[in-house]
Amino acid sequence: MKDLNKMFKPESVAVIGASNTPGKVGYIIVDNLINDGFEGEIYPVNPKGGEILGKTAYPNIKDVPGKVDLVIITIPSPFVNTAVKECGEVGIENMVVITAGFKEVGEEGAKLEAELTALGEEYGINIIGPNSLGITDSHTPLNGSFSQMMPPTGNMAFISQSGAMMVAIIDWSVTSGIGFSKVISLGNKAGVSEIELLQYLAEDDETNVIICYLESISDDDDFVRTMRETAHKKPIIVLKSGSSSAGAAAASSHTGALAGSDLAFDTAFHQSGIMRVETMAELFDLGLAFSKAPLPKGDNVAIITNAGGGGVLTVDAMEKAGLNLVQFDEETTAKLKECVTEEGSAKNPIDVLGDAPVIRYKESLELVLGYDDVDSLIVMVCPTASADPDGIAEAIIEEKNKFDKPVIVVNMGGPSFEDANDALRENGIPTYVFPETAVTALEAMVKFARLEEREYDDVIEKIDDVDKDAVKAIFDKVKADGRDTLLGSEAYAVAEAYGISAAPIKLSTSADEAAELAEEMEFPVVLKIASDKILHKSDIGGVKVGISSAEEAKATYEEIIANAKAAHPDIVPDGVEVQKMMDSGEEVIVGMIRDKQFGPMIAFGMGGIYVNLIEDVSFNLAKGMSSQEIEEQIASTKVSKLLEGYRGEAPCDVEEVKEAIKRVARLTLDFPEISELDINPIFVYEEGSSALDIKIKL
Amino acid sequence: MKDLNKMFKPESVAVIGASNTPGKVGYIIVDNLINDGFEGEIYPVNPKGGEILGKTAYPNIKDVPGKVDLVIITIPSPFVNTAVKECGEVGIENMVVITAGFKEVGEEGAKLEAELTALGEEYGINIIGPNSLGITDSHTPLNGSFSQMMPPTGNMAFISQSGAMMVAIIDWSVTSGIGFSKVISLGNKAGVSEIELLQYLAEDDETNVIICYLESISDDDDFVRTMRETAHKKPIIVLKSGSSSAGAAAASSHTGALAGSDLAFDTAFHQSGIMRVETMAELFDLGLAFSKAPLPKGDNVAIITNAGGGGVLTVDAMEKAGLNLVQFDEETTAKLKECVTEEGSAKNPIDVLGDAPVIRYKESLELVLGYDDVDSLIVMVCPTASADPDGIAEAIIEEKNKFDKPVIVVNMGGPSFEDANDALRENGIPTYVFPETAVTALEAMVKFARLEEREYDDVIEKIDDVDKDAVKAIFDKVKADGRDTLLGSEAYAVAEAYGISAAPIKLSTSADEAAELAEEMEFPVVLKIASDKILHKSDIGGVKVGISSAEEAKATYEEIIANAKAAHPDIVPDGVEVQKMMDSGEEVIVGMIRDKQFGPMIAFGMGGIYVNLIEDVSFNLAKGMSSQEIEEQIASTKVSKLLEGYRGEAPCDVEEVKEAIKRVARLTLDFPEISELDINPIFVYEEGSSALDIKIKL
Repeated sequence: MKDLNKMFKPESVAVIGASNTPGKVGYIIVDNLINDGFEGEIYPVNPKGGEILGKTAYPNIKDVPGKVDLVIITIPSPFVNTAVKECGEVGIENMVVITAGFKEVGEEGAKLEAELTALGEEYGINIIGPNSLGITDSHTPLNGSFSQMMPPTGNMAFISQSGAMMVAIIDWSVTSGIGFSKVISLGNKAGVSEIELLQYLAEDDETNVIICYLESISDDDDFVRTMRETAHKKPIIVLKSGSSSAGAAAASSHTGALAGSDLAFDTAFHQSGIMRVETMAELFDLGLAFSKAPLPKGDNVAIITNAGGGGVLTVDAMEKAGLNLVQFDEETTAKLKECVTEEGSAKNPIDVLGDAPVIRYKESLELVLGYDDVDSLIVMVCPTASADPDGIAEAIIEEKNKFDKPVIVVNMGGPSFEDANDALRENGIPTYVFPETAVTALEAMVKFARLEEREYDDVIEKIDDVDKDAVKAIFDKVKADGRDTLLGSEAYAVAEAYGISAAPIKLSTSADEAAELAEEMEFPVVLKIASDKILHKSDIGGVKVGISSAEEAKATYEEIIANAKAAHPDIVPDGVEVQKMMDSGEEVIVGMIRDKQFGPMIAFGMGGIYVNLIEDVSFNLAKGMSSQEIEEQIASTKVSKLLEGYRGEAPCDVEEVKEAIKRVARLTLDFPEISELDINPIFVYEEGSSALDIKIKL
Repeated sequence: MKDLNKMFKPESVAVIGASNTPGKVGYIIVDNLINDGFEGEIYPVNPKGGEILGKTAYPNIKDVPGKVDLVIITIPSPFVNTAVKECGEVGIENMVVITAGFKEVGEEGAKLEAELTALGEEYGINIIGPNSLGITDSHTPLNGSFSQMMPPTGNMAFISQSGAMMVAIIDWSVTSGIGFSKVISLGNKAGVSEIELLQYLAEDDETNVIICYLESISDDDDFVRTMRETAHKKPIIVLKSGSSSAGAAAASSHTGALAGSDLAFDTAFHQSGIMRVETMAELFDLGLAFSKAPLPKGDNVAIITNAGGGGVLTVDAMEKAGLNLVQFDEETTAKLKECVTEEGSAKNPIDVLGDAPVIRYKESLELVLGYDDVDSLIVMVCPTASADPDGIAEAIIEEKNKFDKPVIVVNMGGPSFEDANDALRENGIPTYVFPETAVTALEAMVKFARLEEREYDDVIEKIDDVDKDAVKAIFDKVKADGRDTLLGSEAYAVAEAYGISAAPIKLSTSADEAAELAEEMEFPVVLKIASDKILHKSDIGGVKVGISSAEEAKATYEEIIANAKAAHPDIVPDGVEVQKMMDSGEEVIVGMIRDKQFGPMIAFGMGGIYVNLIEDVSFNLAKGMSSQEIEEQIASTKVSKLLEGYRGEAPCDVEEVKEAIKRVARLTLDFPEISELDINPIFVYEEGSSALDIKIKL
C-alpha cells in the first residue's frame, strides 16, 4: 500500500509553474493554498523567481530551501517530465500533475505519459494525474486544486475521474448539506490509481465513506481480493460510466481506455463488496446516509409519519429493497395506540396524523427506538398546518441520541424545513425530501452492514486434484494440429483431468476400435464423425444414436465415415467419436467468458437449446470466488428451483453443480489460452451429474 | 362529463363554517380567499351572523343575497349533510367539503358519507371531499384551501389524495421552479372522482400536464377507454401508492378502500396511456419537463456537454430508456469539429470541453438544433473555471427559440446556476441537476408523443361468431350439479362455442360410447376419468394415452372405471372423457385473472409445466383491448421468439394465438361468473393451434 499521508497532510507544498497572472492555473493554485487556509510552507516555483502572491518564488525545485512534502505541477506538458526528474533528484515523494496534454490528446501525449509513469516509478514518487484538477483535504486544510470553491468540511471522500464533474459536485454540495474530507481529481491515473487511493482512504480516520465517479478501473491482477479487503473496511460507492454499449463506446473515445465488459464490472464490484449505483443522485444520497448515521444491526425498519400516504410509499419502496417492516408486540402496540390517538395507526407504519404535535412524535420515537427488534427508523414529516418542523427535529435529535440506531428523516417540503434539515444533519441524521430516497439509502446501509457476515475461503485455489500436465499436452496437440477448437474426445479428456463429471467420449480411428471403446463404455452409445471442419454433423448422417452392440458399432463406423466422405470429399475426418448415452437429467449450463480486464467469468444457468432465449444465467469472476458466492450464484437462477425439486420432484445433486463451477473456474484460471468454454447441457441427477457437450476454444 | 368550471372559476364563494377565530379552518379559508387575491364575492356563513374578516356573515346559505358559484364547508361532520341539503335547495352546483370525520373514521362516518353522496346526486351538486384540504387555482386566483401557502403560478395541475402530501409538495415547489395551475385535494372522493377531474383538466387551457398522487382509483366500468380519451389529450402522470403487497395492506388500512391488484393498475394505466412513476421525485421531474418544453417529434437525441464523463452517463441512461443517439452526417460533423476544436468531440455526445466559451456552446447548439434528424437536445454544463453559466443559458434560450424542439438543460451544480436555472425555466426550458433525470423526463415525453400513433379498434367487442347460449347452458348445468369446476369436455364445448381451437374432448358414459367417440375423433386418443372430485387422475390409473382402436377404447374404459372405483370407492365418476391426441407444437398459455376493480385481465406467455418458474407472461385488460395491444402483449414475451421461428425453425401460426387471446377476452367479459380460466398448454403449429388443457372455474 502506498503511503499517501504527506500527499494530503503535507507540511510544505511547492507549486511548479506558479504565476503572478490572475486567472492562470499557476496563480489560482497558489491563491487557493493561501486563501483556503493551508498552514504549512508554500513555495512557488517559477524560472523568473521574485515573489508570487507574497511568497518568495524559486527558479527551480532544487532551489527550494526546506523539505517539500508535496509538489503541484502546472507547467506545459513538454516541460513536465524534466521537472519530475528534478523533483525525483531532490527526493520529492508526492506530486499532483495538473498539466493536461498527455494520453487524452493522442499518441504523442501517451508517450509523454509513459515516460512520466516510468519516472514516478524510478524515483518512487506518488503521482496523481496528469490532467488532474488537483486534490483538496478539508481537515488539513489543503486546497491543492484549481477549483474555485473549497468543498465544505465533512467525512465523505470523493474520487472523480472527471475534473468537470468534480467541480460540478463541489458546487452542488454547497446547498445539499454534504461535506467532504478529501476530494481527489484522478486525471489520467499515470501514477496513483483509484485502487491505491481507496486503500489509503479506507485507513483514513477523517473519512467514513468513499464515493467515486469512475470511467475506467485500473488493472489489478487480483481486483476482487484487493478491493474486498478495502470495501469491507469502509463503504465504497461507485458510479461507473459506460454501462451501456453506446456509453462504453463514447467512454472509450473519451478516456482512451479499453474497458472490460460492464457485466464483468458489475460482477467484480458485487464480489468485492463495492456498492455500484446508477445515477449521480444516488451516489450522493447514499454517501450522505453513510457519512451521517451509524450502521443498522439488521433489516428491521420502523416508520413514523404524519401522512398515511407517505407511509405507504415508504412501505412500497421497502418491499422492493428487501427491507422488513417491524411488527410490534401487543404491549408496545397498546402504548403506541395511546400515543397516536384513536384515529392514528399504531401499526407500522405508525401514523401520528397530520395534526400531530411535537410530543406525539417524541413519544412514539422513544417507544419505537427503544423496541429491540427495530434496527432503524424512518421519520417522515409533512408541513401540515399544525406541524412544527423545528420542534420535531429537536425531538428526533433528542431521542436519536439515546439509542445507537440509524434514524433517517424525510422532511417533505422546501423552505419549511431549512433549519430543521441543518440541525438534523449536524446531529448525525441524514435528511431527504422524498421517502424513496431514504429507503434506497437505508438499503445500502443494511447491505454494507451485512458484508461482515460473508465468508471467503479461496475455494478455487484449494483445488489440488487436477492434472495440469494432461491438459497442457492436449492443448499442445491441438495447437500443433493448427486447430483452435478441441474435439469432443479431447474436451472430455480435459474435463476428466480436472475432475468434471462428463459422459465418456473417445476417438476411434477404426471400426474395431469403435466397437472396443463402445464395449468399454457399455451400450448404448452414440457415434459421431470427428472433425472440427464438419459443422452440421447430423445433417450429413454423421451422428447415430442408440447403438447397442459391437456389431452395430462397427457397421455404423463405416457408415458414418462413408456419409462424411460423400458430403465432404475434401475433408479427412479425425475418425469417429464414441460417446456413452446418458439418462437425461435436469439440464444446466456452466460456461466461461474471458473478460479483458477481470479474466475468466463463470456463467451458470438453465441449460438446453433455449439458453439465449430464457436468459436464466448468473455470473462470478473465477479469481477470488468463494463457496458462498457459488451458492448465491446458483440460488439466483430459476433453474435452482428445479434442482431443489420443483413441485415435489426429487432434488438434484447440487454439490455436483458446485464442483463443475469450481473446476471450470480452476481450469480457465490455469489456462489463460482457453478463450471460450461452454458445457451445455450438464445433466444433473439425483446423484451425480454428466456433462454432455463440452466446447473448448483456444 | 361534469362541468366543473365554476368550481375553479367561481364569481362568488360561500364558506359555511366561516369563523372569526384565527387558527380555525373556517377562518383560514376566508383569510386565504381574501389574501391570495380572489376577486369575486366572498360570503362567510355562520349562525351568529355579524362580520367575518370584514365581510358580512350570513346565518344560513339561504340568507346569502347573491348567486353562489362555490360553497366550501368546514362545519363539524354531524352538521354537514343538513347544510348540503340546504345548499341543494338554493341551487348550489359546486362544493368542497373540508370537514373530516367521514369514511376515514369508521362505520358511522361511512354512513354519513353515503348520505352525502346521495344528496350530491339528488341535488346535482359537484362535491369535492369530504376530508379535503381544499382546492386552489392560481390563474383565477382562488385559494379555497387551508394550505398556508398559495402554490406558485404555472401550468401543471396536481391532484392529491393525501392532504398532507399536497401541503408538502406546495412547500417544496417554492424552491423547485415548479408552478401549478390547480391543486386539488381529493379527500374521500364522495362526489367528484379523480377520473372526472382528469376529464375536466384535459380540457383546461391553463393546464398542460396533470400529475396525481393517488391511493386508490375510483370505479369506472370502462376505465381504460374513459381514461384513454383523456390521457391522449394531455400528459397524465400518476404516482399510485400501495404497489407492494405490504404497501397495499397499509394503504387499505389507511384509506379503507378495497383496491385491485397492482398488476391490474399497471396494465390499466399502460393501456390507457397514463404514465405511472415509482417515486415522488419522478412525478415532479416528469411534470416539469411536460410543463415547460414542446413535445419531441421522435426519439433521436443529441447531447452537448462540457464534461465528457457527463456525456457518457447521459448515453448510458439513454440506452436504458430506449432513446436514440443521433449520428451526424459528414458535413455537419466537419462543421462541429471546427466549432469544438481538435481536442473536443464532434461526434454525439458532442464534447465542447471544460474550457468552452459561450460561443462554442452557441455555435454547436445552432448546428445541432438545425439538424433535421435531431428531435431533442440535452445540454450539459459543469461549472468549470472558464464556464459562464448565465451566458450559456442566454445562448441556449436564443437558439432554442429558433427551433420548435425540446431542449433540456443539465446544470450540474448548485449556487453557480441559480440565475441560469430561473432564466431557462422561464423560457420554456426544463433544467435538472443530474443527467439521468433529464433522460427520464425525455423518455416520458417521447412516449407521450407516440400515443397519437396508437390504434384502437374495439376488436373484442367486434367478435360476433360466438354462441353465448350454448355456454350459458353449460354453466347452468354445472351450477345445477353443485359444481364450480367444469369437466374437460364441458370446457371444450365452451371453447368450441367461442371459436377457440381445442383438441376435441368428449364425455362417454359407457364403453361403447367411448369407442364411438374415439372413432369419430380418429385414433389415437386419450381416455381420462371424468370427475371434478378426483384430483391426481394419473396416479390412480385414471388416464391412458395412445389408445389406437375401438376395441382398446372399450377395454380401457372399463379398466379406468375399475381403477377409479378401487381408489375412490365413495366417488361416482361422471364417466370417461375421450380426447384426441394431438401432435405437439410450441407451448403457450392463455389465461385470465379476474381483477376486483378492472375485470378480466388476459395473460399470455410461455406454456408448459414450468409456467410459474419461467414467468414469461404478459397481461392486457380484456375491456378496451385493441389488436395493437394484443400484438405488443405477445411480442413482449420470450416465447414470441419461438413462435417467430427461433434459430431457423419454421414460424408458428401467431394469428391463432391472437384469436385465442381475443376469444378468451370476449368469453370472460361475457360471463362474469367465470372466476378462473387457464388454457395450458395451447400447442401452436405452423398452421393452426390446439388447446390441450382448458380449466374453467365459476
